[in-house]
Amino acid sequence: MSQSTTSEFLFGRSSSTSACPKSKEGGEKMQTVEEIFHMNKGVGETSYAMNSDVQNNIISVGREATKKRIVQALCSSNNWPVSMAIADLGCSSGPNALRVISEITDAIYATSRLLDRPAPELVVHLNDLFGNDFNTIFASLPSFYKKMKQQNNTNNNHNNKNNNNNGSNCFVCGVPGSFYGRLFPSNSIHFVHSSSSLHWLSQVPGDILEGRALNKGKLYISKSSPQSVLNAYSMQFKNDFLNFMEIRSQELVAGGCMVLSFLGRNSLDPAEPHACYQWELLAQVLMAMVSEGLVEEEKVDSFDAPYYAPCMEEIKWVLQKEGSFILESCEAYEIDWDGGVEFHSDSFKVLSCGERVSRTIRAVVESMLESHFGSHIMDELFLRYSELVEHHLSNNRTKYINLVLSLVKKGW
Amino acid sequence: MSQSTTSEFLFGRSSSTSACPKSKEGGEKMQTVEEIFHMNKGVGETSYAMNSDVQNNIISVGREATKKRIVQALCSSNNWPVSMAIADLGCSSGPNALRVISEITDAIYATSRLLDRPAPELVVHLNDLFGNDFNTIFASLPSFYKKMKQQNNTNNNHNNKNNNNNGSNCFVCGVPGSFYGRLFPSNSIHFVHSSSSLHWLSQVPGDILEGRALNKGKLYISKSSPQSVLNAYSMQFKNDFLNFMEIRSQELVAGGCMVLSFLGRNSLDPAEPHACYQWELLAQVLMAMVSEGLVEEEKVDSFDAPYYAPCMEEIKWVLQKEGSFILESCEAYEIDWDGGVEFHSDSFKVLSCGERVSRTIRAVVESMLESHFGSHIMDELFLRYSELVEHHLSNNRTKYINLVLSLVKKGW
Repeated sequence: MSQSTTSEFLFGRSSSTSACPKSKEGGEKMQTVEEIFHMNKGVGETSYAMNSDVQNNIISVGREATKKRIVQALCSSNNWPVSMAIADLGCSSGPNALRVISEITDAIYATSRLLDRPAPELVVHLNDLFGNDFNTIFASLPSFYKKMKQQNNTNNNHNNKNNNNNGSNCFVCGVPGSFYGRLFPSNSIHFVHSSSSLHWLSQVPGDILEGRALNKGKLYISKSSPQSVLNAYSMQFKNDFLNFMEIRSQELVAGGCMVLSFLGRNSLDPAEPHACYQWELLAQVLMAMVSEGLVEEEKVDSFDAPYYAPCMEEIKWVLQKEGSFILESCEAYEIDWDGGVEFHSDSFKVLSCGERVSRTIRAVVESMLESHFGSHIMDELFLRYSELVEHHLSNNRTKYINLVLSLVKKGW
Repeated sequence: MSQSTTSEFLFGRSSSTSACPKSKEGGEKMQTVEEIFHMNKGVGETSYAMNSDVQNNIISVGREATKKRIVQALCSSNNWPVSMAIADLGCSSGPNALRVISEITDAIYATSRLLDRPAPELVVHLNDLFGNDFNTIFASLPSFYKKMKQQNNTNNNHNNKNNNNNGSNCFVCGVPGSFYGRLFPSNSIHFVHSSSSLHWLSQVPGDILEGRALNKGKLYISKSSPQSVLNAYSMQFKNDFLNFMEIRSQELVAGGCMVLSFLGRNSLDPAEPHACYQWELLAQVLMAMVSEGLVEEEKVDSFDAPYYAPCMEEIKWVLQKEGSFILESCEAYEIDWDGGVEFHSDSFKVLSCGERVSRTIRAVVESMLESHFGSHIMDELFLRYSELVEHHLSNNRTKYINLVLSLVKKGW
């Protein structure tokens, strides 16, 4: 895609209110969040696979809730399940993609052994957007199955007739598409996991899209944002999350469970630093580049991140409105911007904290920034960002707030 | 992979008798059919996507059997199905990957409308080996869903609640793995389709693998092959096909159906030209290159194609032995080596018949030939092959024989 056309694409303030491609006035095709957005592919220096320590930490803080929910689901079932369908929504690729699944299947097998029951056949649905790198996940499946087979053999929990060609009784498939739409047949899923995904909106908030640049010089909610911008973001999140809950309610069996882990905030104020300062600093870098003539100001004004860090009040409002799930627990965790990893060795170079944060953010948001600002400024942008983050963190203790919800569908 | 190591891999006559990686004597890891084999990727001149007219023709000859089987399955069901799980085994990528699925879903929707019943929710499982290019299939899904949505809307067969994010009530997923192993949970699949896949064996025939070069100067069964080679191939096919049938019997619901379409033969003689001459000519080209010092003779002697074109007697022997399926129909079709397409325009160049055949074969077998002989001889090999095929077809009417089996699982 040439740079001259990228500016016409995503995050221009069009009146699009759906996730489907729409024609602009001139008949030009707009690209949507789900068409553009993906983690950086491959295994290079800027790839998501090499820069997903933060997301791994987020998985870790949700681990206990996930295991607990799985064990409860198995033990509270009237009939011991013959098969279970599990879905990981927003699985991405890289080392995290199969890590969650490993932990879930391990918990199921351990519980089965403990209770001396046959392990259920497991169908694992890995979901992410159409542009996700499923080939890389699938290429790592033979070793995943091999490991699982070894564990099963060790534990004498082995039944040839029910095993797949790799010797386990776990069947992994890829389900591409947005989780803001239906992905599975009705009443077919027993357990849903989603980590580091639900803070991504289905689209840029509707009101901001009405052709008005209400959030000049910013990429997301900021201290200086007008109330209308705050309202638009909150409304978009509520709509998306309500839609998500309604759809999952159709797909889950009665008694089915979900563990949802995503970035949020502890305060009612959406402009508090923990909730938005990573975007604030990115906007500062871009505006500095505007002042040097490296980026057009209009480009910054016209970009709004399809992101929202909600508070528990907003989440509970949606859960009450949707009505078919019981919130069993909700916990908030502070997560370091750099994943809390002391150093990240890459070609034997010790990275600064700012560099680690910059790489983590780049691996996630580059696809959407590139599509709007052009690929030519990416290296410079993230170099400056790493310096600004380094400076910021030397004087501040800004963290991400990660929320972990454990939910059960009523009706069993 | 450097050329010096490729020769150590697949199709060397090791004693491996399983599809799992095994260590050679020196502890070196052998690669298996399922690890190496894939259609040529992408959309370039030698890609499978651009050279799959023959496979499309094969799909066409199986179309009526597929539609008939689907309609019968729907109509003979005691309870109209709320949902149906469909699997396409060996889907590959390129234009054929979704073509079969389109035809199957169209038939289901058309029958539902005709009988004025609600269309069932459809789960479509696309299966191929771990190395298949699923990313390319998934990238084409948004337009597939869009077309399906338009058709559904036109036919007023639209139920928002059951629709996925693209408006259809069809859910497509990718299931990587060998179909000679379990892919799905027990009793979960209603309809299986497989086209141009079951003539590929799970491994090189066992007896030939015992370190004896019994089939010198050949790549597959030939008029000069000893009886032991013929027996080994027949035995390998029977083992693989029996395994396939036993596994599918576990996965299909009672009354579930299969339409299996693959290359075979009309005669009892496995060395008849229709059954093997494409390999005969390829061996002739390689042996000519041996005589010019371009290829090592040992390499030709040590390559055996994991392929078999069975006759109906062998198939019926397996079906009787497995016992859980009724063979409703079996038909044989002659398919032109070049797909019967009069010309193939590529950059406005009209290709000769020999060139078309050569490209079709290359798109399928290059991954395995490259792994054994090295990539450096591929262009020369297939240039010579096109000339030899052109010469052969000017004097002969050799065709492929494609068998189409329609099967129903007993017990409904």
